[in-house]
Amino acid sequence: MSVVPIEDRLAIEDAIIGLASAIDSMDDGEAVAAAFVDEGIYDLSTAGLGAFTGHAAIRGFFAAAWSAHSHFAHVLSNFAITAFAGDTASAQVYATGHALTKAGERSAVLARYRIDLVRTGAGWKIARHTTGFLLPPG
Amino acid sequence: MSVVPIEDRLAIEDAIIGLASAIDSMDDGEAVAAAFVDEGIYDLSTAGLGAFTGHAAIRGFFAAAWSAHSHFAHVLSNFAITAFAGDTASAQVYATGHALTKAGERSAVLARYRIDLVRTGAGWKIARHTTGFLLPPG
Amino acid sequence: MSVVPIEDRLAIEDAIIGLASAIDSMDDGEAVAAAFVDEGIYDLSTAGLGAFTGHAAIRGFFAAAWSAHSHFAHVLSNFAITAFAGDTASAQVYATGHALTKAGERSAVLARYRIDLVRTGAGWKIARHTTGFLLPPG
Repeated sequence: MSVVPIEDRLAIEDAIIGLASAIDSMDDGEAVAAAFVDEGIYDLSTAGLGAFTGHAAIRGFFAAAWSAHSHFAHVLSNFAITAFAGDTASAQVYATGHALTKAGERSAVLARYRIDLVRTGAGWKIARHTTGFLLPPG
Repeated sequence: MSVVPIEDRLAIEDAIIGLASAIDSMDDGEAVAAAFVDEGIYDLSTAGLGAFTGHAAIRGFFAAAWSAHSHFAHVLSNFAITAFAGDTASAQVYATGHALTKAGERSAVLARYRIDLVRTGAGWKIARHTTGFLLPPG
Repeated sequence: MSVVPIEDRLAIEDAIIGLASAIDSMDDGEAVAAAFVDEGIYDLSTAGLGAFTGHAAIRGFFAAAWSAHSHFAHVLSNFAITAFAGDTASAQVYATGHALTKAGERSAVLARYRIDLVRTGAGWKIARHTTGFLLPPG
């Protein structure tokens, strides 16, 4: 792959961290959607939860998730750019996803994100976000 | 906000990681204090533990915390610069705070730091460090 | 220490994250070895597991570890360059090491890596990797 300019590497990290912040806000569907391109895909099929294409579908998924939970915390680490071609890039990220349901149940899952991004006039945005398990849920 | 120069972004991360290293050393009050400006504030009021202003008060808080614990580990992630104006900046950071008391009790808390920093002749230092819960303690 | 160029700082992080990815692949001994210089040392003596010098010994250690486990996840954070002299560097990193044995036992350990690296014609590589406990295993 071509050398990744530092500005792009950091901007890509910021976009991914920004999505986590938006998800963990528990209500900011606007910010979640804005992390994706218009036809962006949030793919949880590996977790058996389906795949959601486009801003409306992604917002709908999170509206439902937020209505069932009081807290999320997506703790990100191990950022790695795995592909880069100037205006497109792929990243691998580790995520420890903590959740607390409104019924009081806690869970924590160790996931590996694989994320495709594209450079847009408004910065790097997510084209496809897939989640696999680093460890099977315990 | 203005664009954040990469040098400043990384130096701000280093200052925050340096404070965690100092706290986790379990004895280096000098290094903890040096992370703050003279009148810096370490604010744990959200956790019901008060707020400490100035080097002597901050060192006093940690001396007491260290005397009750054998180990701390502050695992930091999700760094985001949320404000930047050249010589001042604000950052949001996720922190998983692990503790082991001398009596053998373990705990882990998911926190969100909001930190205000200022540029000094000796680099970026913390003016105010506040801790909120990402998930309520379990 | 001399000022650390940003390119080197990020390349050193990448080398360390790359080793974690290789270990967590559960089978890529080639990639694990390639993270080290020829006579590199992977030192787990603090954990009572010995120290392994050179590619063959390091691959042997991981082959055994992988045969006993179905999953590893090494979650890295708190990167700090602690020494830098142009072509050599040292780093401190926090690591939460999650493991799942083939028998179904889970464990998580909070470790502090101290890593010495050298610049080679093929980028930064690890000369010595030592693991200490941040918290004693629980």
